[in-house]
Amino acid sequence: MSPLPPGSRIGILGGGQLGRMLAMAAAELGFDAHIYTPEADSPAARVAANAVVGSYEDAEGLTRFAAGVDAVTFEFENVPLEALATCAAQAPVRPSARSLEFTQDRLIEKQFVRGLGLETAPFADVSAATDVTAALAALGTPAILKTRRLGYDGKGQVRIGAPGEAAAALSALGGAPAILEGFVSFERELSVLAGRAEDGSFAPFAVTENVHADGILRRSKAPAAVSAEIASEALEAAKRIANGLGHIGVLAVEFFLEADGRLRVNEIAPRVHNSGHWTQDAGAVSQFEQHIRAVAGWPLVPPTPPVKPVVMLNLIGDDATDWRALAAQPTARLHLYGKRAHRPGRKMGHLTLINLQADPS
Amino acid sequence: MSPLPPGSRIGILGGGQLGRMLAMAAAELGFDAHIYTPEADSPAARVAANAVVGSYEDAEGLTRFAAGVDAVTFEFENVPLEALATCAAQAPVRPSARSLEFTQDRLIEKQFVRGLGLETAPFADVSAATDVTAALAALGTPAILKTRRLGYDGKGQVRIGAPGEAAAALSALGGAPAILEGFVSFERELSVLAGRAEDGSFAPFAVTENVHADGILRRSKAPAAVSAEIASEALEAAKRIANGLGHIGVLAVEFFLEADGRLRVNEIAPRVHNSGHWTQDAGAVSQFEQHIRAVAGWPLVPPTPPVKPVVMLNLIGDDATDWRALAAQPTARLHLYGKRAHRPGRKMGHLTLINLQADPS
Repeated sequence: MSPLPPGSRIGILGGGQLGRMLAMAAAELGFDAHIYTPEADSPAARVAANAVVGSYEDAEGLTRFAAGVDAVTFEFENVPLEALATCAAQAPVRPSARSLEFTQDRLIEKQFVRGLGLETAPFADVSAATDVTAALAALGTPAILKTRRLGYDGKGQVRIGAPGEAAAALSALGGAPAILEGFVSFERELSVLAGRAEDGSFAPFAVTENVHADGILRRSKAPAAVSAEIASEALEAAKRIANGLGHIGVLAVEFFLEADGRLRVNEIAPRVHNSGHWTQDAGAVSQFEQHIRAVAGWPLVPPTPPVKPVVMLNLIGDDATDWRALAAQPTARLHLYGKRAHRPGRKMGHLTLINLQADPS
Repeated sequence: MSPLPPGSRIGILGGGQLGRMLAMAAAELGFDAHIYTPEADSPAARVAANAVVGSYEDAEGLTRFAAGVDAVTFEFENVPLEALATCAAQAPVRPSARSLEFTQDRLIEKQFVRGLGLETAPFADVSAATDVTAALAALGTPAILKTRRLGYDGKGQVRIGAPGEAAAALSALGGAPAILEGFVSFERELSVLAGRAEDGSFAPFAVTENVHADGILRRSKAPAAVSAEIASEALEAAKRIANGLGHIGVLAVEFFLEADGRLRVNEIAPRVHNSGHWTQDAGAVSQFEQHIRAVAGWPLVPPTPPVKPVVMLNLIGDDATDWRALAAQPTARLHLYGKRAHRPGRKMGHLTLINLQADPS
């Protein structure tokens, strides 16, 4: 595909904060963002040139949408593959369906990662309580039972503390196809955000260190305080994954780092990612602009590491109710997503702390 | 006015690139931007939650618009005062009409600046050819005849090289009320961008040095390479002007700096300004966010000077046609305004050069 000229229309499936920040990045480069989302009055629609409210099952609506844009991308990995195929009949879709196929399903994802010669947590495919019991015997407890599909922010996961809890855990997940993951006693969680262009050029951001609570990202710091060896191993793993997917756009690879330096791939997000929000306020290019560049067939910007360590704090649920205090923090850059209602666990915005005098970690 | 909570609606009069960048800055803070402009398919409308196409003479349309927002601001100083008064009956207008009254008319502006004890170019009020002849005798040639109202980017100005050209110059301006400005042989052009909040707090950005060609800004550099004394004199002048206007929001004051260090106020723009675009990519806060903060009654962010000198280059007319080359410059941050047509002299976008290895000036 030849590069899209400014003024071209970038279609984005999904109307949340990632779609919103992608839409603004597209506008900065002179593109028009068009949003397709089931959500009325979505955060992304309010910064876009055009927005359609429709379901991902509405092939006619998707066809019309995709026919009206010059390229299609998405803000989340749970877009049905059929929806993407419908769009692809009208306009280039970037990343392609392959990036979704290998990441929508935890079992396929783990098999793909292992196939690249990379490590994951130990896992087993389980569909019945007897499978879980057998898998628990092999992997030990504690272990985590996860639905194969549609999990995010800790949803679709149950921790199993003792072998007797297998049946209850399976039924807590509603009997959905699942995998059992052995417990990894990790010391740190890392992620690599990287852009990959159609010509195969690969542009990773500095390795990021993440802290989760209740399955939700709370805090990211870049660059991660890890050895050069670990950093380069993580970047190399992300590159192998991006190449393996033939990915076009930004992706995120999350890792567990164990005390002995062992690095395991935890999860792949074939899209811009919460742990890369610091790139908006530090370094040469944001993950959102980089993604739009890849989608538009533009050259990627070589990311530069932040001059000083940068910390991103998520504002979750009620964290954003005290907006007066947040607005008054002079060294923090505030980003709010325009969500109408606060709900527990809902991501409402984030703060980036730059020019830190002392490392707050 | 108490601070507006996130989710509030910020009305912006004007749909050009300044309105566009204000709208995106408002969205970053969780506000909804509503645009009012006579232009269909305007650059600002395409990044706003809501856009109304209407004339500044349509009192009913303006009333409806202002009744639907929580505060009103503007992107340019030629909004009719009546339009602002109409809006002010429905919602707080920031900056207030006073900031326009003193800056829409070059004669009133210069008298206001002199009244603050600051220097301007020598000038005279002229309405007939005989006035111009007398003024030329006093101020000498060359001199510049400028319409009192509605000038921007070098429009509404005629240079007079010799006394005999007076009548022709007046008629070139269509007989509009005008002032004659004596020629100032300046060495440099400087500007100060600054935010001022309702409580009187004043937050200037680093002094900027500007280069114009054909009356249009081409290039800005910050911080300006001037002595600390000159910088502080410029900042102090901007503060006096902002206070004198009771300005709420960002304003720009343009100066001539003469070889002997004499600083004269050239022009005031009661709004965000082209010479402040570098603040998007360097320093703690952009002029656009700072303006929205003032409009919303939020505390201002103390600006920090850029770590290294930063240069902003305007992309004018055909400058943006070679977008492939612009997109491939790794150290430049590209901003395009989404304007549909290239025209000579039209501002299409800008580039910010940061992390410069060597000073390109």
